[in-house]
Amino acid sequence: MAVLDTLGVTLAGATEDAPRILYDALELGQTRGPSLMLGSARRLGCLDAALVNGVSSHTLDFDNTSNTMAGHASAVMIPALIAAGEACGAGGRDVLLAHAVGFETGARFGHGLNFHHHEKGWHPTSTLGVFAVTAACARLLGLSPEQTANALGLSASLAAGIKANFGTMTKPLHAGQCARGGLMSALLSRKGFSANAQAFEHKQGFFNVFNGPGNFDAARIVESWGGPFDVTAPGAAYKLYACCAGAHAAIEAALMLVAKHGVFDPRSIERVNTWTPARRLPHTDRPRPNSALDAKFSVQYCVARALLDGKVVFEHFEGDAYREERVCGLLPRVHAAPHRPGQFAPDNNNGAVVEVTLADGSIQSAKVERALGRTAQNPIPLDQLRAKFENCASRVLGPKAVRAALHAIDRFEEVASIREFTALLETAV
Amino acid sequence: MAVLDTLGVTLAGATEDAPRILYDALELGQTRGPSLMLGSARRLGCLDAALVNGVSSHTLDFDNTSNTMAGHASAVMIPALIAAGEACGAGGRDVLLAHAVGFETGARFGHGLNFHHHEKGWHPTSTLGVFAVTAACARLLGLSPEQTANALGLSASLAAGIKANFGTMTKPLHAGQCARGGLMSALLSRKGFSANAQAFEHKQGFFNVFNGPGNFDAARIVESWGGPFDVTAPGAAYKLYACCAGAHAAIEAALMLVAKHGVFDPRSIERVNTWTPARRLPHTDRPRPNSALDAKFSVQYCVARALLDGKVVFEHFEGDAYREERVCGLLPRVHAAPHRPGQFAPDNNNGAVVEVTLADGSIQSAKVERALGRTAQNPIPLDQLRAKFENCASRVLGPKAVRAALHAIDRFEEVASIREFTALLETAV
Repeated sequence: MAVLDTLGVTLAGATEDAPRILYDALELGQTRGPSLMLGSARRLGCLDAALVNGVSSHTLDFDNTSNTMAGHASAVMIPALIAAGEACGAGGRDVLLAHAVGFETGARFGHGLNFHHHEKGWHPTSTLGVFAVTAACARLLGLSPEQTANALGLSASLAAGIKANFGTMTKPLHAGQCARGGLMSALLSRKGFSANAQAFEHKQGFFNVFNGPGNFDAARIVESWGGPFDVTAPGAAYKLYACCAGAHAAIEAALMLVAKHGVFDPRSIERVNTWTPARRLPHTDRPRPNSALDAKFSVQYCVARALLDGKVVFEHFEGDAYREERVCGLLPRVHAAPHRPGQFAPDNNNGAVVEVTLADGSIQSAKVERALGRTAQNPIPLDQLRAKFENCASRVLGPKAVRAALHAIDRFEEVASIREFTALLETAV
Repeated sequence: MAVLDTLGVTLAGATEDAPRILYDALELGQTRGPSLMLGSARRLGCLDAALVNGVSSHTLDFDNTSNTMAGHASAVMIPALIAAGEACGAGGRDVLLAHAVGFETGARFGHGLNFHHHEKGWHPTSTLGVFAVTAACARLLGLSPEQTANALGLSASLAAGIKANFGTMTKPLHAGQCARGGLMSALLSRKGFSANAQAFEHKQGFFNVFNGPGNFDAARIVESWGGPFDVTAPGAAYKLYACCAGAHAAIEAALMLVAKHGVFDPRSIERVNTWTPARRLPHTDRPRPNSALDAKFSVQYCVARALLDGKVVFEHFEGDAYREERVCGLLPRVHAAPHRPGQFAPDNNNGAVVEVTLADGSIQSAKVERALGRTAQNPIPLDQLRAKFENCASRVLGPKAVRAALHAIDRFEEVASIREFTALLETAV
């Protein structure tokens, strides 16, 4: 699932500005190596591939997250693992095991450091994600326990990324730098490059310097290991829609109405009420979005799209789509309010109610307790994830190549060679 | 001076383990580009060259520092500027101007953030140095003011490096990563890669996240700009000896005795007393060093070397040199004590007195208020810096090439092409 989801959004993201500028500015076209730059037929050195694919994987903000790590766990790991797997001749099973190791590592650091770490202004996708990538790559490259500890100590000196750069291309660059850094830590450590394996607990180490004395609990990082594994419960949060997760339950409620009623004619709608969690509204109450990015955070826009189009796809958040007259005309009648008392349990920070009043006075309403994909207990059905992959991958691959890729990902554990696997993803150009 | 000093220690550092492992582990041998890897005849992409040369420049810890930035300013800038200068066809004057811009930028950040930033556990060489490199490269590449602000905002997401990794190869890696990151920020920003130019003052920006509320003074960064320029006063601190700066004044005092007396026969010495600043002694009071690194921090070893050899060169801190019997035999008779009341002004944290009692009962004593090179007001004579360059560069270049390099550096402002200049530094291999 992580591979399916992450490769899809990376292929789609590869057409965006951020990876394109990176490729040009750093003159990656002048280099050669074993590792595919996704969305192209170019092969780069594994560190360059990890960097640019890492940027592609996160540039749409459509990739899965670890709630415990409070960041995008697979977007940083998959690019590094695929690039390294191509370089070292690994297979699909190796990548999956390494991903599980890294996911758990990132989550464990989250247990000891969050949410203070996140609230303070660090971007855990990169500042904790680098340990996930390092552990994952250490596993893939077969490092000894001592080398792995050394690699983690080394990557404590590479952790970087602040939230002040959210909303700019530098946010996905955090993911790319992290993918590159974690892989580099493992490669260097394997060859004996020294670091301090006690770089976390040291008085001028990661815990004290990044979180500050009293703001972390190192014991929680290692206690109750595997009870259960975080990748199983709560597991990653996956996105079906390329917009702020705070709007997903409302989108689903709107789609439930469409399933009963069919897509709505905007002229037939008198009023739309939405009730979503109060703590989400500062991000998502945007009655008139002024940009494509704004639209991603507008619950009004997202719900209008769902009601009028019967789907929410990433094309709705691109270019001038947010200006489409049909949708904008409806927006003044779409309202956003916080949960009413009794509507949801007090700790529900995800559920939504959408209520449509039609011109004829009839009212239709739907309620969603929790959007699909928020945890492993509430998973997105595989066929919907496959549809997401198809939608994403079709941006750069022809229908035949998309089918071949899907087929291979379905049997990813049996893939003997990542290098042969990625040959399926090479674009014609 | 910065070029002469930094290129020398980088050429010498290139033979050390850290850059060698980096080169192997990251398979830099498989890449090609315009920028020389110092200490070789290989040319790499400019980012790779900045990375590996940055590691070489700092691996001996023999390069200059900015007291205001509290870090190694030129070791991060020169590798990036030379590599970028080769790639973009710049000349010597461009590099010198860019270095001055970057030095000032790093120092300004120091005014607003130190010493809290340093004391907390950040390694300012990289966490503030990245702004020095970014500003320097922005100048070299001719970025507009807006692009420069964007580049600095971007590099706020690349700042990394904690002191817990001091004493390992990861410390010079901080310099290499910083050189690479600052250059990358400028390259990306030039092509329109977006960041938040307010990434410093933002509530989850660099000042708050790295130093914490109340622990910085943003106004001091821009006030009294150029009054005077930091590169003029206090200026950088240069090292004549490849060991802890806390031992330098004692070495000079010992060398003054040698200048009068000639090198000492260890059998003729009854006792050696040294008085150095109390706050240095926790680092430098190491009567019997147990490793080459230990020897760099042993004032006893350094003074013994100066008295017996009449010089202190970096070969004295390599391999098994610290075990040499002639020197070890003297060590039990060399004593380290803090300044006596009245010996120096209370705020003197640099001066030293060395007193040698000979077997015939005669006593020779010398006093140094401040080691050469601590500030621009007390500079190392140019011929001694040139001798340091020769000593360093001779590790990888023949005598003819060393002379040619010295000649070119003497006229560095007139160097028309950095690419032609570095051709002089290519090794025969």
